[in-house]
Amino acid sequence: MTRKVGIIGVGNVGSQVAFSLCTQGICDSLVLIDKNAKKAQSEAFDLLDMMAYTHPVSITTQDYAALDDADVVILAAGPEMMAQEDRLSELDETLAILDDVLPKLLHTAFHGIFLVITNPCDVVTHFVQERTGWDKQRVFGTGTALDTARMKRMVGSTLNVSPSSVEGFVLGEHGDSQFVAWSTVHVAGKTVSGSVALDRDKVEQETRDAGWAILQGKGCTSFGIGTTAAMITKAILTNEQRIIPVSTFDAKKGVYIGLPALVGRYGATTYYPKLNDSEKARYDTSIAVIRQAIESKNNTKPKKLSP
Amino acid sequence: MTRKVGIIGVGNVGSQVAFSLCTQGICDSLVLIDKNAKKAQSEAFDLLDMMAYTHPVSITTQDYAALDDADVVILAAGPEMMAQEDRLSELDETLAILDDVLPKLLHTAFHGIFLVITNPCDVVTHFVQERTGWDKQRVFGTGTALDTARMKRMVGSTLNVSPSSVEGFVLGEHGDSQFVAWSTVHVAGKTVSGSVALDRDKVEQETRDAGWAILQGKGCTSFGIGTTAAMITKAILTNEQRIIPVSTFDAKKGVYIGLPALVGRYGATTYYPKLNDSEKARYDTSIAVIRQAIESKNNTKPKKLSP
Amino acid sequence: MTRKVGIIGVGNVGSQVAFSLCTQGICDSLVLIDKNAKKAQSEAFDLLDMMAYTHPVSITTQDYAALDDADVVILAAGPEMMAQEDRLSELDETLAILDDVLPKLLHTAFHGIFLVITNPCDVVTHFVQERTGWDKQRVFGTGTALDTARMKRMVGSTLNVSPSSVEGFVLGEHGDSQFVAWSTVHVAGKTVSGSVALDRDKVEQETRDAGWAILQGKGCTSFGIGTTAAMITKAILTNEQRIIPVSTFDAKKGVYIGLPALVGRYGATTYYPKLNDSEKARYDTSIAVIRQAIESKNNTKPKKLSP
Amino acid sequence: MTRKVGIIGVGNVGSQVAFSLCTQGICDSLVLIDKNAKKAQSEAFDLLDMMAYTHPVSITTQDYAALDDADVVILAAGPEMMAQEDRLSELDETLAILDDVLPKLLHTAFHGIFLVITNPCDVVTHFVQERTGWDKQRVFGTGTALDTARMKRMVGSTLNVSPSSVEGFVLGEHGDSQFVAWSTVHVAGKTVSGSVALDRDKVEQETRDAGWAILQGKGCTSFGIGTTAAMITKAILTNEQRIIPVSTFDAKKGVYIGLPALVGRYGATTYYPKLNDSEKARYDTSIAVIRQAIESKNNTKPKKLSP
Repeated sequence: MTRKVGIIGVGNVGSQVAFSLCTQGICDSLVLIDKNAKKAQSEAFDLLDMMAYTHPVSITTQDYAALDDADVVILAAGPEMMAQEDRLSELDETLAILDDVLPKLLHTAFHGIFLVITNPCDVVTHFVQERTGWDKQRVFGTGTALDTARMKRMVGSTLNVSPSSVEGFVLGEHGDSQFVAWSTVHVAGKTVSGSVALDRDKVEQETRDAGWAILQGKGCTSFGIGTTAAMITKAILTNEQRIIPVSTFDAKKGVYIGLPALVGRYGATTYYPKLNDSEKARYDTSIAVIRQAIESKNNTKPKKLSP
Repeated sequence: MTRKVGIIGVGNVGSQVAFSLCTQGICDSLVLIDKNAKKAQSEAFDLLDMMAYTHPVSITTQDYAALDDADVVILAAGPEMMAQEDRLSELDETLAILDDVLPKLLHTAFHGIFLVITNPCDVVTHFVQERTGWDKQRVFGTGTALDTARMKRMVGSTLNVSPSSVEGFVLGEHGDSQFVAWSTVHVAGKTVSGSVALDRDKVEQETRDAGWAILQGKGCTSFGIGTTAAMITKAILTNEQRIIPVSTFDAKKGVYIGLPALVGRYGATTYYPKLNDSEKARYDTSIAVIRQAIESKNNTKPKKLSP
Repeated sequence: MTRKVGIIGVGNVGSQVAFSLCTQGICDSLVLIDKNAKKAQSEAFDLLDMMAYTHPVSITTQDYAALDDADVVILAAGPEMMAQEDRLSELDETLAILDDVLPKLLHTAFHGIFLVITNPCDVVTHFVQERTGWDKQRVFGTGTALDTARMKRMVGSTLNVSPSSVEGFVLGEHGDSQFVAWSTVHVAGKTVSGSVALDRDKVEQETRDAGWAILQGKGCTSFGIGTTAAMITKAILTNEQRIIPVSTFDAKKGVYIGLPALVGRYGATTYYPKLNDSEKARYDTSIAVIRQAIESKNNTKPKKLSP
Repeated sequence: MTRKVGIIGVGNVGSQVAFSLCTQGICDSLVLIDKNAKKAQSEAFDLLDMMAYTHPVSITTQDYAALDDADVVILAAGPEMMAQEDRLSELDETLAILDDVLPKLLHTAFHGIFLVITNPCDVVTHFVQERTGWDKQRVFGTGTALDTARMKRMVGSTLNVSPSSVEGFVLGEHGDSQFVAWSTVHVAGKTVSGSVALDRDKVEQETRDAGWAILQGKGCTSFGIGTTAAMITKAILTNEQRIIPVSTFDAKKGVYIGLPALVGRYGATTYYPKLNDSEKARYDTSIAVIRQAIESKNNTKPKKLSP
């Protein structure tokens, strides 16, 4: 019955995911792991200080063995400096993190779902799956789920409609080559193509730059991604079969990339959208960007870890 | 700051709306009114018994004056016997209820939103607006919001997708002439027209008959409508601008009928969908049914009440 | 990870427990069982109609085998006519229900917690434990949890304090011999003994009669008990170790009776309060009432069922 | 109907309060104000990115005029460097903040409740009330609400009981002279004095040092205080009359200090506890500490601002 979640890396993002899970009562047991043990312990204490006023969650720290029976493990570890404009540039530091984290995780009995937040999200998700050899459905990333929320905010704000009433997806790389799949964007069952109020290029540009804009003012992004990861975690734990745009495996193209997926107990099942020709071209461009990043690192590393 | 809701008629439906509002913390103050004062008082006590374990809500009963500053008043009063197959047949009894309730309400300073659950919903909404003379945006009905939830349940269940990930609307009369506007139904941004798994006629039939089927087994329907009305009330109170299919005024056709509307602090603003020709025809049929019911009563009653 | 709850008996009380669990997102999977299969199915459909607007819960009906891996099974089945003033008089009908339900349950692999709502709660809890032979911690009843909420409502209402800020317990039989353990009742850390505003006898009388008063007006009680049972179920599923006055086993006296207990994953662990002499005397009286009811039935039935 | 909250100072604490309010759906409208406009705007965007997945909240920034109709304004502005062991040492910088903020606020039509988080909380609350001349009930501080949560965590953890089932208060200064009022601490209606498992001095020491310990590992405290302030804000907005230990005015002693108070729409009404002699002595010591801090600044500043 216990819903157990592990979070590896409790910086601004990982700790905010933990806070969201506790505040919303999404899990009953948390395992926090960080390269800085004192940080993990402090985050745990700060979370435990909430418990008199919110949902009960038990918390342990720095204990990989406690992940044996975790239902979900979330990777939120990332490079020290987040303020880099291009998410792909964070890759080297992140691969070093995988080299540290994954062997330890492979030594546990963990058999749950692995959710990647760490950027560049699609590429990291690829390497996690490759190095663990886990089923592709079990490993996925937050991908364009946050970008999609941003697009909904901007479309909603323009049309004076609740963002939750804007349907549709941002697809592709969780990075600069992402795109709004306008053919999937509906308000009240209608596409928004005809809306004169809506400057689609502007929405797309602002969606892409939203994280960067937030970074400039607060030094990190945390609330949007924390809420998004909590929502995905809830979909897994409740076996919701909710359709969420995540970094899921495109079996046709052989790449992890932002696509709609059914999210539930067994992870993410890609739910292929019907894109028009222009969207297909942009999708292919995005795939190329992700592939290039993967290949630039591929030669130097063993493909699969031996536990 | 206080969010105050009045409920007129606390039978199976009205009391379940009250329970949903309390459980979800959607309002802070409730006014319960029923023709049976003892029933209203008992419902109030039963709700107050929850408060040690849930959200704080203050409750008063049988006091029209307490509606002076209500933000929302919900009409859930209905005929004794609900198990009538045709919602329109409940009309006579319901009009007598309006004759009792509306003059009392018009003597208060109430200036909030009036939400009709009582069936036949579209027709009752019409008569409420006509007799009060209130702005058409301020008065609306739950309409096909529940039917839409049922359609989402059935499509979701067939495609193994969460109902919350099924987009689209049931439109028209909250009654036998309702129809699924299939052109608005999307899963992951795609219409479901091509889905071989989905028998659209069956979904439509089961959606239409769902209330009747539930009635057979439990003697009423309460959970679905209670949750639906609570969701609409929350959209009003939080000024959400959420798009919900409700019984809203179609200014082009001059009739209250199930259509998408932006729901917020000022009530329901109709958000016209783009229907195809076959849907337009079914919509017109539904309008005719509603109009006929209205006209059958129209000759015998004064159009506007003098407060 | 899945939190599964079975409810046996989905009349006014059982169905309201189900609704509360779904609305609050307390469980992910529900099994509804009723002697009337059509009723169970209708309740399931009415609950599923909520899902587009609330938390995802999967529901099955009439399937004892589905209880194999249930975390909690709640007994809410009861006699047809609830409007009997004395809860003990409902006993004969209820024992017949146990004869039907328990053998079926014993044939499953169910190894979770069994929560009794059915009245007379303490006596039924005794017979459930006796006939199943289950560990005494695994079987407990809602006991005086609802009575305690009522006492808090009345004390809070008198002192103009939130009921959630009133501490203390109603103890003893969930029936006429119950009593407010005033030595445990605190507001802001102080006992309320000295409060001139508070007529303790009146509070006690009204607490005892609250269910009966509600019954008169609405024909059942449902919201208070539904919320209380949901709160207890949440405490079990989240392993909260919350102290709740339930019908728990008093090992010193050898009887199930309303006492504070730590409620968590393993059920209820009695947490003996410190009563004063007058309270001890009333507690003993209550024990005598429960024992008498048990003994009146004990001679005629086999003590332990063979599965 | 709209529940509007202003937050002045959106650093680690203020932004976490905003996030908690949004995640829990406690308010509908937020006004964020910071000396760094870009920071306020970024926090707003990060919060708006959640809205597709949570509750609808409208957000404006840097606009004092928007506080005209705010129900609650929260002061969370504080000195740059939080890592000072003694909360009183932060006072000079904080008084300069008051000189900036209060005149602007006094020029608005704001007539709601003012909640102080900024440290040293009791002293700042004093100066806010003195300089604004507002009713003493309208102005109060978070005081020992967080310290109380910490005490509950530690007692609960020792006795293996949910912190929400530990009653009682930490009282006095939100600072080094605070004390656990052990006579108010109850578990299951019993004082914990007799518990051999519980080292009361240790609990008290760890409660006092908890914030400092968290600061060492994460550089700030945010989750505990964010949740605490959200809980207090909810009590105000729902007129809950919940008893919470806050920095409230002790009219007998003429000082703001941590005491239980009834929190609701009109602010905090002190609810005097019954302390024993030793607790009274510690309370008086705490008063002396607060008074000394106030007097050290009192000579140099005008007592009341002219708006």
